[in-house]
Amino acid sequence: MDIKEIISNIQPVKQEFYEGAQKRLNDLTKPIGSLGRLEEFARRLVAIYENEMPDLPKKVIFTFAGDHGVAGEGVSAYPKEVTRQMVFNFLRGGAGINVLARHAGAEVVVIDVGVTGDFDDVKGLVSKKVVSGTKNMRRGPAMTKDEAIQCIGVGIELANDYAKKGYRLFGTGEMGIGNTTPSSAIAAVLTGRPVSEVTGRGTGVSDEVLKNKITVIEKAISLNKPNPSDPIDVLAKVGGAEIGGIAGLVIGAAANKIPVVIDGFISTAGALIAYGLEPKTKDYLFAAHVSQEIGHRAMLDRMGLRPILDLDLRLGEGTGAALAMLIIEAGLKIYREMATFGEAGVSNKSTGKG
Amino acid sequence: MDIKEIISNIQPVKQEFYEGAQKRLNDLTKPIGSLGRLEEFARRLVAIYENEMPDLPKKVIFTFAGDHGVAGEGVSAYPKEVTRQMVFNFLRGGAGINVLARHAGAEVVVIDVGVTGDFDDVKGLVSKKVVSGTKNMRRGPAMTKDEAIQCIGVGIELANDYAKKGYRLFGTGEMGIGNTTPSSAIAAVLTGRPVSEVTGRGTGVSDEVLKNKITVIEKAISLNKPNPSDPIDVLAKVGGAEIGGIAGLVIGAAANKIPVVIDGFISTAGALIAYGLEPKTKDYLFAAHVSQEIGHRAMLDRMGLRPILDLDLRLGEGTGAALAMLIIEAGLKIYREMATFGEAGVSNKSTGKG
Repeated sequence: MDIKEIISNIQPVKQEFYEGAQKRLNDLTKPIGSLGRLEEFARRLVAIYENEMPDLPKKVIFTFAGDHGVAGEGVSAYPKEVTRQMVFNFLRGGAGINVLARHAGAEVVVIDVGVTGDFDDVKGLVSKKVVSGTKNMRRGPAMTKDEAIQCIGVGIELANDYAKKGYRLFGTGEMGIGNTTPSSAIAAVLTGRPVSEVTGRGTGVSDEVLKNKITVIEKAISLNKPNPSDPIDVLAKVGGAEIGGIAGLVIGAAANKIPVVIDGFISTAGALIAYGLEPKTKDYLFAAHVSQEIGHRAMLDRMGLRPILDLDLRLGEGTGAALAMLIIEAGLKIYREMATFGEAGVSNKSTGKG
Repeated sequence: MDIKEIISNIQPVKQEFYEGAQKRLNDLTKPIGSLGRLEEFARRLVAIYENEMPDLPKKVIFTFAGDHGVAGEGVSAYPKEVTRQMVFNFLRGGAGINVLARHAGAEVVVIDVGVTGDFDDVKGLVSKKVVSGTKNMRRGPAMTKDEAIQCIGVGIELANDYAKKGYRLFGTGEMGIGNTTPSSAIAAVLTGRPVSEVTGRGTGVSDEVLKNKITVIEKAISLNKPNPSDPIDVLAKVGGAEIGGIAGLVIGAAANKIPVVIDGFISTAGALIAYGLEPKTKDYLFAAHVSQEIGHRAMLDRMGLRPILDLDLRLGEGTGAALAMLIIEAGLKIYREMATFGEAGVSNKSTGKG
């Protein structure tokens, strides 16, 4: 797969569709602009789809799983085997993402892009393993450049497949014990903020572990020297396989003109890699929510994205993306289903005083 | 109806149910607390219902309609007849609240509690007219004390009826051209803030009209001298019929131990009247969102309520309440449907470092 060629095909969305959509929104039986961000979401979907009256989209959330060598540095509150155990939980439908995706009417696709060890032929799992866990970035690069590119390729391929299958709204998610650590490293390198400002408690570590986590990230960055102007270098040296998969999914979504809802902290690190490769991807991104993880806002700000929800979530998996899909879809329903002033026989005249 | 007696029956929710619910939440396959406010919503529903494993509730949104004599002072961008026209739009299913309630799986009940003129026998409309529009509060009290009490009674009666019918999640909404004006008056009187700090542009008025609106409210308050320690006096003198209906619905919901999602600025003015009559109603309140209307936050703060959504909405009707219901229900589904660590075979052991 030639990632550069795919990226070069990404187009910005067309302004005229925003304007056409706003014209209809202004004609619906409500004060102009009074549905706030729901109107924004409708406009954006119309423009991304290049369709003045889009259907309600088929929805899918991609939950990428991967392990992290750096988890051996004691940066997480959970043991590494939980990544694998949670993959089985996803496949049985018992995890948070399963519940919320059902609530949102979205499918969940679980991808092994970098979990330690083999799954053999587990039913329902998409096996696209690039690495069997990353290497410990505290001791050297997490992945080779080629592996990082392969991870991105996995995401692009999934985007292409699900575009062909008729899915029109994508969400991202992930599972990987230790993966707030590489995400904070990416956040620090690509936003230029100090590590301590973008590193939080992940699954809920103590003050002492947080201090260690910050040191580990600082040392990984000073050892590997990731190049901030080369996002693939950053992904390889201090990233992770599932983060690469998410970056690829964002690129593939944009190339297929499909909106993609990015979940929380780790998903946003993946999106930031994609954005670094091609800022036009932003036109296709919806930021689901702002996580409790402290570095999240800095990455959203870097891309100029305003989160849809603020519910103190910090689970990942795609849980915030599923919830945000419900709100985005509400915007499209407003656009499709509300009566216009003419249809409803409602006066759209100002008293002349307003 | 003896409102005082009904109010005296309102009970605070029982602490032990919060604790029991949290115990289950902590046993679900996720880091403790990582689903943030979804967990809060689940805990609160368990405690309100006094049921360790509540069913998904039947949902209904009550959209109270009323007209306002003060609209004659040129405080709105829309002519008064729009209230009536929008009632017909609600009944035909073409308004924003119809679309979003369908999205949330909630019914919409439209109540005429104070629209100007008669509707005769319009199918689907709940006719509980107390006044044919309020009087102009700039010239005297908007309603008599008896009328205000009747409006509250309408809301209580509806809460009782729908509790009997098996509905277990209520939402509030309203329609009434000019009704941000009495809502700002209530906000000023009951929060003690200056009128200019709690008065916004409503449906979207100009600077000049906003200035006039503030003056009208200030004069209405200084003329009528509503007593801040007597919420019914405030409702009568500077309130509105639909605001009274909402206050009654909140009281009736609390008395029936049913959670009630209050929509935006005007609904919150109604809830603040109810809260003034009995602060225990707070245990049953969910604040759907924070409106773009500037006085909203002050009222939410007065009751110590944190809004669920922030989507720049300012339409009313119950639109924010419908959306928030989807999020609240997501919390209950998490609680009901997620696997526990034991069920899923996922390690819930810290590495000892976290």
